[in-house]
Order: sequence, then structure tokens, then C-alpha cells
Amino acid sequence: VKPYRLVYWPGIPGRAEYVRLVLEEAQAPYVDTAQLPESEGGGVPAVMAALRGELGGVRPYAPPILQHGATVISQTANLCRYVGRRHDLWPADPALDPVALGLQLTVADLVKEAHDTHHPISGELYHEQQEDAALEAARSFRTKRMPKFLRWFERVLADNGGNWIVGDAVSAVDLALFQTIEGLRYAFPRGARAVERETPGLVDLHDRVAARPNVAAYLASDRRQPFNEDGLFRRYPALDE
Amino acid sequence: VKPYRLVYWPGIPGRAEYVRLVLEEAQAPYVDTAQLPESEGGGVPAVMAALRGELGGVRPYAPPILQHGATVISQTANLCRYVGRRHDLWPADPALDPVALGLQLTVADLVKEAHDTHHPISGELYHEQQEDAALEAARSFRTKRMPKFLRWFERVLADNGGNWIVGDAVSAVDLALFQTIEGLRYAFPRGARAVERETPGLVDLHDRVAARPNVAAYLASDRRQPFNEDGLFRRYPALDE
Repeated sequence: VKPYRLVYWPGIPGRAEYVRLVLEEAQAPYVDTAQLPESEGGGVPAVMAALRGELGGVRPYAPPILQHGATVISQTANLCRYVGRRHDLWPADPALDPVALGLQLTVADLVKEAHDTHHPISGELYHEQQEDAALEAARSFRTKRMPKFLRWFERVLADNGGNWIVGDAVSAVDLALFQTIEGLRYAFPRGARAVERETPGLVDLHDRVAARPNVAAYLASDRRQPFNEDGLFRRYPALDE
Repeated sequence: VKPYRLVYWPGIPGRAEYVRLVLEEAQAPYVDTAQLPESEGGGVPAVMAALRGELGGVRPYAPPILQHGATVISQTANLCRYVGRRHDLWPADPALDPVALGLQLTVADLVKEAHDTHHPISGELYHEQQEDAALEAARSFRTKRMPKFLRWFERVLADNGGNWIVGDAVSAVDLALFQTIEGLRYAFPRGARAVERETPGLVDLHDRVAARPNVAAYLASDRRQPFNEDGLFRRYPALDE
């Protein structure tokens, strides 16, 4: 297996965490530039070089960026699908490929909305410049959007038999649901708990993903980074009240 | 060719327009429920039935929804890729598939940000309930985000030789860029014009897409719906000032 190179900002799990989980569950060889010192080709300069197109291929718009041989691609869901397909973490049935992609993209939509609660006006401004709007956005997210998304995933999971979200085996989409539940619990401890009472199947899925040996080993390693207030999921207590 | 069934809200071009353009350029047979009266299985009830899972397959989260034989899928970029692959409107080289998908998803990100200028706090509230935040969001979008995205697409287009955004032929991604430029011109006439001075390649791409016989015939037909203030791209003059 050719090694993968994952290029992302250092210091936050962020969107790259979705790709890391697929790589780790697959036990695929990969270099994570976010965890490499600059002296070894990592850190912020690795991101900047990738954004300048120095990896070849189509210049990426934003990280996470994945290099695999001559392939250089971006967009988180795209990366999860790409790695998943190569390591039995994506439905093998071609008819399920666009179904799985639809689900993976719907997880991405939920994640984007969770992010936008702390940056509702613009990602170009600091959170502190949009706190009032963030309070309103978070209220809508906690009481309407997050429940709507999670109840829907609960229903899809039940319709598929309750084990995995798509197909008959674990896939990148299940790993993404695990990470999203982790993030929602971090950002909205009260709000997430309230919704989880209605989504026991998703909570069970989360726990079964966490208990998988490769995932468990990863979570216990120093490669797993904690959430913090520079990332996708941020704990601002006012946004969870 | 099995006919496609596209399920979407009536009365707006919306995200379905991205899929319609691929179907029209491909001259693929399709039923557009948004254009069918309720008495013939169209309209809002068709969307509600699809969201209840009545088309079979995985219950969709949101329209646009595409049915094609036993396949029922959602997520706009996913639909564009699905139709595109079947009608030579997607790069045939497997190595370019994730590259094209990354580009298609980046168009979707730009479109989502354009939408969120009029609904920055929440899609669950009316625009009129978030007008102040919308003014700020639109300013950031017009002056920072839209230019950043369009300059990047201009660069990618130039890197690819200037004809098409990916591969050596027109693809769903080019059609999506056309529609996005149309939408940005509608929503932000001043803002879009200002950026377009810097992106002549994209303007030329837009014009070449519009002049393709199948696209031109579609644009001149009554199947092409005008933008309006219920859709994705809305003209609120205050947001363009």
C-alpha cells in the first residue's frame, strides 16, 4: 500500500480527524503533517505549500488535503470516501457508493452547521466579533437543526437494521458519525445529551465504533488530539445554555 | 436510458438547478416533479412523499432527490456526479473522479456561503428575522469569501489550460460554475461584477457553457425558472451595497 500524506493545520483535530479515523481503522500507512515538526516538513508551512499547489495536481482550496501517489485531493467527505474505498471501509456494491456519499455529505452538512454556530456571520471574523449572532445561531442549532439531523440519522440507522448506517459493515460514514457525536458532546454537553435520549441507536453506534480495536488504540494514543477552542467544535458555555 | 426522476420544491430553481443543467446538457430523459402539477404526482406532496422514504432506498434528508431505477440519492454534488458519469459529463479517467468531486464540492461550499448571507443565523428563521446579521455576512461574503473562491477557480481553470475546469472536456463542474455565476450576478450584481474583472477566464467559461446548444435551448425554454427571493440566490439590494 502506498503511504498517504494528510496535510492539515496543526493544533486542532478539525476536519482532518474524519480522515484520520478512516486511516487508523484501516491501519493504512500515513504521514500526518499536522503532527510533524516544521523541520521535518510539517506544521503550517506544509499546509501553505500544499495550498500553493506544490503537491502537484489540482491546487486545493482548503485543507484537509490528501496526497496518495499522484493523486492530490481535498474536501473531507471526498477524502473519507477515497481512503474508505481502498480499505473496505466503504460499501463495495457500486449501487451503494452514491448512497454512502450522500450520507457522508449529510454528516458534513451537520458538522458545518455546528461550526457555524460560533462563526455565523463569517469565518473571516473572530468568534468574539460575532458573539450575539452566535448565541442565536446556537439556540437554533441546539433546538432545531441538531435534533433534526440526529433523529434522521437514527431513523436511517434503524431502517438499515441498526448495526451500521449503510451496507452491512462498518464504513467511513459510521466513523464520521462517531466523531460528530464526540464533537457535539464537546461543544454542546447539555444540548447533545438532550437529543441523545431520542437517538439510542446512534449512541450505541458511537460506542461500538469507539470499542473497535484499531479505533480504541488510536483514541488512547498521543496521535488523538483533544478538541479545543480553535477548532471545528468549540465549547463556549454560553452557546449551550 | 432509464428515465430520471428529480424531486424538488416547486417555484425556485434552487439546488435542483445544478442537476437540471446536467440532465439538460446530457439530453437525458427526466421527470421534474417541481414542474408537475400535484394532480400528476408533482409539487410539494412529491417532496414530502420522498422525504417519508416512499421512493425506497435510504430515506433522503433533503431535496434535491434523484431516483433512477432502484437508486434513490440526495446531496446536490452527488447527483451531479451520478448523472454526469452516465452521460460523459464527468471525467472518464478514474484518477480524475475524486478531483472532479473535490471541485464540485467546493462549488457547493461557495453556494452554501452565498445562501447563508441571507440566512446567517439559521435556515429555520425567516430572512427578516436576521437582517442585521445578514448585512454583516453579506459584506464579508462580497469582499472576502466570494473573491477568494472565484480567484481560486480562475487559477484552477488557468492551470488546466483555460477551457474546462477539470479534464479535457466539459463536465458537470463547468455547468455548476455557470449556474453559480448566474446566481451570484442575480444576488450581488455589484459585488459579482467587481470580482469578475479579476476572473475573465471564468466569465468566458460561463459564456461558453451558456452557448452550448443543449444549454442554450434549455435556458430559452419555460423549463428554466427565474431566480427569486424564495431561493438559494436572492436579490436583497441592501446585501449588495
